Amino acid sequence: MLAAVIYGAYDIRMEEVADPAIQLPTDVIVRVTQACICGSDLWAYQGVAKRNPGQRIGHEFVGVVEEAGKDVKDLKRGDTVVAPFMWSDGKCLYCREGLYTSCIDGGFWGQPDSDGGQGEALRVPHADGTLVKIPEGLDHQTMTKILALSDVMGTGHHAAIQAGARKGATVAVVGDGAVGLCGVLAAKRLGAERIISLGRHEARARIATAFGATDLIPQRGEEAIVRVKELTGGQGAHAVIEAVGTEQSMHTAISIARDGGAVGFVGVPHGGSQGVDIRQMFNRNVSLKGGVAPARRYLPDLLRDVLAGELVPSPVFDRTVGLDGVPEGYAAMNDRTALKVLVLP
Amino acid sequence: MLAAVIYGAYDIRMEEVADPAIQLPTDVIVRVTQACICGSDLWAYQGVAKRNPGQRIGHEFVGVVEEAGKDVKDLKRGDTVVAPFMWSDGKCLYCREGLYTSCIDGGFWGQPDSDGGQGEALRVPHADGTLVKIPEGLDHQTMTKILALSDVMGTGHHAAIQAGARKGATVAVVGDGAVGLCGVLAAKRLGAERIISLGRHEARARIATAFGATDLIPQRGEEAIVRVKELTGGQGAHAVIEAVGTEQSMHTAISIARDGGAVGFVGVPHGGSQGVDIRQMFNRNVSLKGGVAPARRYLPDLLRDVLAGELVPSPVFDRTVGLDGVPEGYAAMNDRTALKVLVLP
Repeated sequence: MLAAVIYGAYDIRMEEVADPAIQLPTDVIVRVTQACICGSDLWAYQGVAKRNPGQRIGHEFVGVVEEAGKDVKDLKRGDTVVAPFMWSDGKCLYCREGLYTSCIDGGFWGQPDSDGGQGEALRVPHADGTLVKIPEGLDHQTMTKILALSDVMGTGHHAAIQAGARKGATVAVVGDGAVGLCGVLAAKRLGAERIISLGRHEARARIATAFGATDLIPQRGEEAIVRVKELTGGQGAHAVIEAVGTEQSMHTAISIARDGGAVGFVGVPHGGSQGVDIRQMFNRNVSLKGGVAPARRYLPDLLRDVLAGELVPSPVFDRTVGLDGVPEGYAAMNDRTALKVLVLP
Repeated sequence: MLAAVIYGAYDIRMEEVADPAIQLPTDVIVRVTQACICGSDLWAYQGVAKRNPGQRIGHEFVGVVEEAGKDVKDLKRGDTVVAPFMWSDGKCLYCREGLYTSCIDGGFWGQPDSDGGQGEALRVPHADGTLVKIPEGLDHQTMTKILALSDVMGTGHHAAIQAGARKGATVAVVGDGAVGLCGVLAAKRLGAERIISLGRHEARARIATAFGATDLIPQRGEEAIVRVKELTGGQGAHAVIEAVGTEQSMHTAISIARDGGAVGFVGVPHGGSQGVDIRQMFNRNVSLKGGVAPARRYLPDLLRDVLAGELVPSPVFDRTVGLDGVPEGYAAMNDRTALKVLVLP
């Protein structure tokens, strides 16, 4: 079957690989019906996050169970499923607390010796603990909305929750990538009154507005900080979503948080802690919370809202490719001509 | 009257200064009956935190109101009071939210043109918003317990709250200074089941044990991290109190937090953000919360517990001096032969 394989910086290839097979009785094989490319895949694409040549890639997918191991209880051949971006056993002490990303037997798709989501099919470890069953027969558009719950919407939601987005709050979002935009949508869903989106890309600003942003700030760095302060009576935002992961974005996020507020950070940190202005955090009691999002935890709630027509994250997808178009999809996201690329195997 | 004045590194002098006088109608003058020296005063003493030669110093005191400005409503001459380590107007939006340390008209005792707590008397701005009245006629010992609420106990409590210390939790405390020890006591008061105190000073370890520490770790750095992991089944502590403020202590604190847990940091950060291991925070969803403690917020609750005999933080005081002994008190705390010095004017 065909799957995306990464060989090095800017070198993603579609290759014929061995069909996935059940290895453990808790595995299932999923045939992928929709996948996508993530902003975090770009760190590997750019060579910043190291990969061994030949690793698979992609961690967001929906699909249909093709085969189930003998110990799989909740899923059977033919079931339609959505996956969070990590697998987890669903029963360890961390999973029971909802922190699926710290599962003692969890893992990332694409890690060595595992399959990736950008391909025709893949083996899913701990299928019962990982996958969420969805109704059959949903249309393409609805499935695309659900696909967004695999990562970007769950991650934006995690950031919003950790930042303390709530009814009546002012929320600021640093970053206008798909996660930042989903952060806007999550903040809106949680009842934020004012949502300030920081980003300079016009098409994305339109999505931010559609998702609920009340104010758009194209400036960066100190200028952006000044603008947020101006918009908030000098105070800053109750809740700040940091969805970039650079030292500058972290510094901006902390600087625009209101005293006693919090930054929910979900941008994979690339670079060091230089941007974490600990003095400012101390003097103003600004908290820093977040991390890799336990998307599995949020899936049932967000899925319910999608099925009810109340949550529509699919506008983050602005380009569609087939499997053979995956390499060009990476290139398009890398040069920011595409926001998020949908892959239809 | 006599007051402590700082002239430079290791140069604290007791000097005759002008008697304090009401400047604003919301001021009171307090005659100090007990004061003390804080670990954070040592940053100024060591020259790390800059002071102008001639600034007053000291920010913890209990005393008696000697004179009240005409707009002071809740206090009158003769009232016994305890002060938190900052003044605050008690009515701005931050004060109303309990974040007194971000008061829009607040300040620190000892800042330029203000009085300090280590002296015979001082002017208290925003007296109604700042001071908490306590019953008259309490004995010396009870007043000493209440004095600890000015800063160290309120700060330890803030750290414990921010770290998420709660019934049944495992709490680790980095630092065996007076704040760290009060953090142990606060964690115990909040119902922590296991309290791990990190520190190598034997006399302080005895206080930690008396305050509720169940485990003592004299090691530092990587060794300490390994020990905490061993004691917690490899997981780390649900809640970590960081009560030192160095890069190493911050790194230790983050490293010994359990996945999904939090570090409550109250050590005044001296040094940069190097110790804030953002990658580890991200991968394990460890939060960093805290900052300068709104001691005023916690005073009523903690005072009630002291008066009920249920909270006894006074063992952190292990030496007593008169006003003329303040310079030697600083020296003793600086060379760690005293933990915390009580000053009786």
